[in-house]
Amino acid sequence: MAAHPVSPLAPKSYPDLPAIEGVRFATAEAGIKYKNRTDVLLMTFDEGTTAAGVLTRSKCSSAAVDWCRTNLPGGRARGLVVNSGNANAFTGSKGRESVQLTAEYAAKALGCSTEEIFLASTGVIGEPLPAAKFAGVLDEAATRLNQTPWIEPAKAIMTTDTFPKLSGALLDIDGVSIKINGIAKGSGMIAPDMATMLSFVVTDMPIAAPVLQALLSKHVQKSFNSITVDSDTSTSDTLLAFATGKAKIDPIQSLDDPRAEIFGQALFDVLFELAILTVRDGEGATKQVAINVEGATDDASAFRIAKAIADSPLVKTAIAGEDANWGRVVMAVGKAGEPADRDRLAIRFGDLLVAENGERAAGYDEAATSAYMKGEELEVTVSLGLGTGAATVYTCDLTHGYITINGDYRS
Amino acid sequence: MAAHPVSPLAPKSYPDLPAIEGVRFATAEAGIKYKNRTDVLLMTFDEGTTAAGVLTRSKCSSAAVDWCRTNLPGGRARGLVVNSGNANAFTGSKGRESVQLTAEYAAKALGCSTEEIFLASTGVIGEPLPAAKFAGVLDEAATRLNQTPWIEPAKAIMTTDTFPKLSGALLDIDGVSIKINGIAKGSGMIAPDMATMLSFVVTDMPIAAPVLQALLSKHVQKSFNSITVDSDTSTSDTLLAFATGKAKIDPIQSLDDPRAEIFGQALFDVLFELAILTVRDGEGATKQVAINVEGATDDASAFRIAKAIADSPLVKTAIAGEDANWGRVVMAVGKAGEPADRDRLAIRFGDLLVAENGERAAGYDEAATSAYMKGEELEVTVSLGLGTGAATVYTCDLTHGYITINGDYRS
Repeated sequence: MAAHPVSPLAPKSYPDLPAIEGVRFATAEAGIKYKNRTDVLLMTFDEGTTAAGVLTRSKCSSAAVDWCRTNLPGGRARGLVVNSGNANAFTGSKGRESVQLTAEYAAKALGCSTEEIFLASTGVIGEPLPAAKFAGVLDEAATRLNQTPWIEPAKAIMTTDTFPKLSGALLDIDGVSIKINGIAKGSGMIAPDMATMLSFVVTDMPIAAPVLQALLSKHVQKSFNSITVDSDTSTSDTLLAFATGKAKIDPIQSLDDPRAEIFGQALFDVLFELAILTVRDGEGATKQVAINVEGATDDASAFRIAKAIADSPLVKTAIAGEDANWGRVVMAVGKAGEPADRDRLAIRFGDLLVAENGERAAGYDEAATSAYMKGEELEVTVSLGLGTGAATVYTCDLTHGYITINGDYRS
Repeated sequence: MAAHPVSPLAPKSYPDLPAIEGVRFATAEAGIKYKNRTDVLLMTFDEGTTAAGVLTRSKCSSAAVDWCRTNLPGGRARGLVVNSGNANAFTGSKGRESVQLTAEYAAKALGCSTEEIFLASTGVIGEPLPAAKFAGVLDEAATRLNQTPWIEPAKAIMTTDTFPKLSGALLDIDGVSIKINGIAKGSGMIAPDMATMLSFVVTDMPIAAPVLQALLSKHVQKSFNSITVDSDTSTSDTLLAFATGKAKIDPIQSLDDPRAEIFGQALFDVLFELAILTVRDGEGATKQVAINVEGATDDASAFRIAKAIADSPLVKTAIAGEDANWGRVVMAVGKAGEPADRDRLAIRFGDLLVAENGERAAGYDEAATSAYMKGEELEVTVSLGLGTGAATVYTCDLTHGYITINGDYRS
């Protein structure tokens, strides 16, 4: 399925997510770009399903993103069509015709209006997407919809991903069991500004669209918006959440409902796990790295410093080389342009203090630090000593694998 | 001399820069980090030499940068000491003592005050610099000062550079021949925000320090501040200009003097050539790339978009793969966050139009574009169609060489 070796950080097994009442799906081979693998996902929702979403902030967003932006205020969903292999981005009027046509095919197959259809495309930018290929495919897929297994939709939306990404949560609210299932794809071009590559989350919780939207917008910040693989923000980033409302419980109509917070926390858990899986499948990744910044003047400043460190090619190549090169961390703090006092800086790799008061720590232990750097999951903590602002950004290392995947070919 | 293969973009020969009256130099081996190569430069200036400089904006600037920042307002220079192999950055109070001591050694050897001594250090961050090693070295070097050859100082300041960088200009003002000589070092950690790694320019033009400073600050913008190798801004970026004033001509006392513009243009030519040489020695570089953005709402917006493209790992790896992947250029335009209208975008590789009106150009010629991408010097032009803002940023490709240089080792 994947042209490149499976990430060494791939999970050993995948969760067997349960059926969620009100949602069914089928995958198919449209042959848009890939051969001998599924590249289309049709997901259908029963009437009454609410929808929310967070979309890329790219100024050059794809036609499918524009389509979702138009339909999201309606807050209702009956169908989702995702294709991999072609992003339908930067395809001009052809792209707009293509999403319109795809939505019409889907609406016809499902017997709903195009306003209730959501679309996402991922893959090559700039190639016109031949929507006509979807015609028979969607009709046929609509005849064999199932509630499981969820790994199939996760596989159909992959591009350079080396493993499918799934996460689920079960929560009990007032004695009723509520399910949240999520899938995601993403490997390169990962630096979400408002969303990630593609991720779809489904729940049977009855929840009003504006509440779902508020929870999604809130919890995307410390999940998908806190990861970066290569600092490149996609034209297609799309996170959509659908709530079928089939759980036998009173609907959440307002953020003031105390259940909103409980549900939101479970939603966050799913978003966070999917975001971390995306980092762990970062192109060429061999290590997962958490960059913690604390003691900043405020959280936003801490985030910008953490992002500067996580995006620094010199920091990322040093980590690939298992080199606790805290000098490069200092460099990245310095280039962030945020308040920082060199002579108050402290830096830890894991629990090991390597620098404090602006110079190498007196008790610096080279052997222990080297041993720590051989691990697969690393943590770098920068203490600025200025205030109480804190943030964490998750990233991976930068290796020959990234260059091979993105540079060693002619398209 | 260099641990890595010489850049394929290295010049075939080096200019034999002329002696400049009022400046002499010697290089030496202090053995700070490198063995069997020069790693210290002592440059001396006759009395009456004016000085100007542009320093890194990093919040974690090195001790030597701080030293220069203190001395620059004085505007007078008698000596410059540069060492390679140790940046004396993030070395706390030890770093401050180290620069003080180095300046005292130099001032004693040259018979001047420490306020007239300028310092620069480049190399590893976070290692204390043992200034005591300079004591005998500077005294000895002061006994064998010469006016040529300029390639020796250019070599002594190298770190991961694979070739020395020199540039000179000769200009005629009112029948008097004026010389400008410049050297630079830089290969990685190159994303100058106000200056580049290290560069030193010397002229015999008599020019007041404030005028020299104004010209330097102006012309750094479209030279050193318009290049990026890896988006990482150094803690040590230092550009210093020294004017010995030995040319037999009335001094330039004000920017209103029409000769300031003529001299400034020649100064720019030297800065620009040194900046391009730095890109051509970018770590792992195999191609030099100019990113032109035109039709932006203003020049600053054009610059930010050009920088986003030039810093994008996906754009840079595509160029390494000789892939005219304009989809990634669109992505980078989109992530810059600047005004852009996807459906007005046009993109050219060299003179070849690949996209217009937000989609692939009708006359797109795959074969011609592929042939163009095999070249060593490439140009990517993005036309936004919004206004008259324009900017150019110079960069290089991102290859396995960069990963090897920065990641394949344990320090």
